[in-house]
Amino acid sequence: MACSCSSVPPQWRHLLSNALQANQHLKHSRYLQLATVRANGSPANRTIVFRGFVEGTDKLQFTTDSRSQKIHEIKFCPKGEICYYFTDTWEQFRIHGLLEIIGKSETDMNKKLIREKAWFSSSSKSRMQFAGPHPGLPVVASQDDHEPELDSEQGPVDCFCVVTLEPEEVDYVHLKDNKRWVYTRSKKENEEAYFWFEIELTP
Amino acid sequence: MACSCSSVPPQWRHLLSNALQANQHLKHSRYLQLATVRANGSPANRTIVFRGFVEGTDKLQFTTDSRSQKIHEIKFCPKGEICYYFTDTWEQFRIHGLLEIIGKSETDMNKKLIREKAWFSSSSKSRMQFAGPHPGLPVVASQDDHEPELDSEQGPVDCFCVVTLEPEEVDYVHLKDNKRWVYTRSKKENEEAYFWFEIELTP
Repeated sequence: MACSCSSVPPQWRHLLSNALQANQHLKHSRYLQLATVRANGSPANRTIVFRGFVEGTDKLQFTTDSRSQKIHEIKFCPKGEICYYFTDTWEQFRIHGLLEIIGKSETDMNKKLIREKAWFSSSSKSRMQFAGPHPGLPVVASQDDHEPELDSEQGPVDCFCVVTLEPEEVDYVHLKDNKRWVYTRSKKENEEAYFWFEIELTP
Repeated sequence: MACSCSSVPPQWRHLLSNALQANQHLKHSRYLQLATVRANGSPANRTIVFRGFVEGTDKLQFTTDSRSQKIHEIKFCPKGEICYYFTDTWEQFRIHGLLEIIGKSETDMNKKLIREKAWFSSSSKSRMQFAGPHPGLPVVASQDDHEPELDSEQGPVDCFCVVTLEPEEVDYVHLKDNKRWVYTRSKKENEEAYFWFEIELTP
């Protein structure tokens, strides 16, 4: 059982960073599963791509289409839990926290910048998806198959969103070693800064 | 858009069966992520192992420990969604449905049998986990490190549970082909039997 103050990166960041490095030769090493809650209270789950951390924070970053179901779900319930399993090193990170959407109507300058940076650092193939037809609608026979065109200098299209996850709890399991650690973000009374409380649990 | 009657296996079963076969050389090909809802209404997500279908049904089968958090979550909200991503063939199955727990106090004879069969078809290493200390409790320094002992003839230990997922909707995406199909279980008015309604959607 131990505490770490907020000015140093929490221990789980080191573990995640090591896992990313050790698995980076795998195409799917950036794929993880995000669980959200639907408006009817039942869960949803899908694979998304980890796009790194928001600079200077512990927030995980993803991109998505404003027309996708997960946007509605996040608006209904802003809590999410990702499950990130690394297939080569047998490590699992379950990260629970607060989801935030940064969309086209964002007014905060820093967040607008995060969205723009995320757009320009996406591949052209990835950007093209956002210029395509509405995801989740029926495919009709007459549908226009022509590739949409996008100027490479053009900023984010309207439906391009960044989703961030601000971790509150990280549950780490190392299957090979049969070890489990849980990291919980906490605040001391009358103090502003967060710290991470860590504890070893039976797997 | 098409319908299939309930007497033939639904199309998604063929797709899943093919994906399992095409990825079977990978150790993690039976690993998937199950999302549930916590008692506070926020989502939970973790990796579990697919243990095949309950004989003669479309129910997916898993095993778990009655002392794990997911049991409490399923009791609170019996809906679940698995996300099953096949890393070699780039296929994703999101399967949403009703979760059921088959535990030691089960009285239905068929379900008792499912639990016993699941126990005896588990590896001895896997069985040993259920004889170990309470999962999710703090590790204490004085903890007994001795391996628990289990007679190989012995039936399921008390905390051994089977969890089944009865699919209501299957959302299938083939990333390489950029194709998406959604299969929804439906019932016609005044009819007992289910059928599967299928529709192609934009990914």
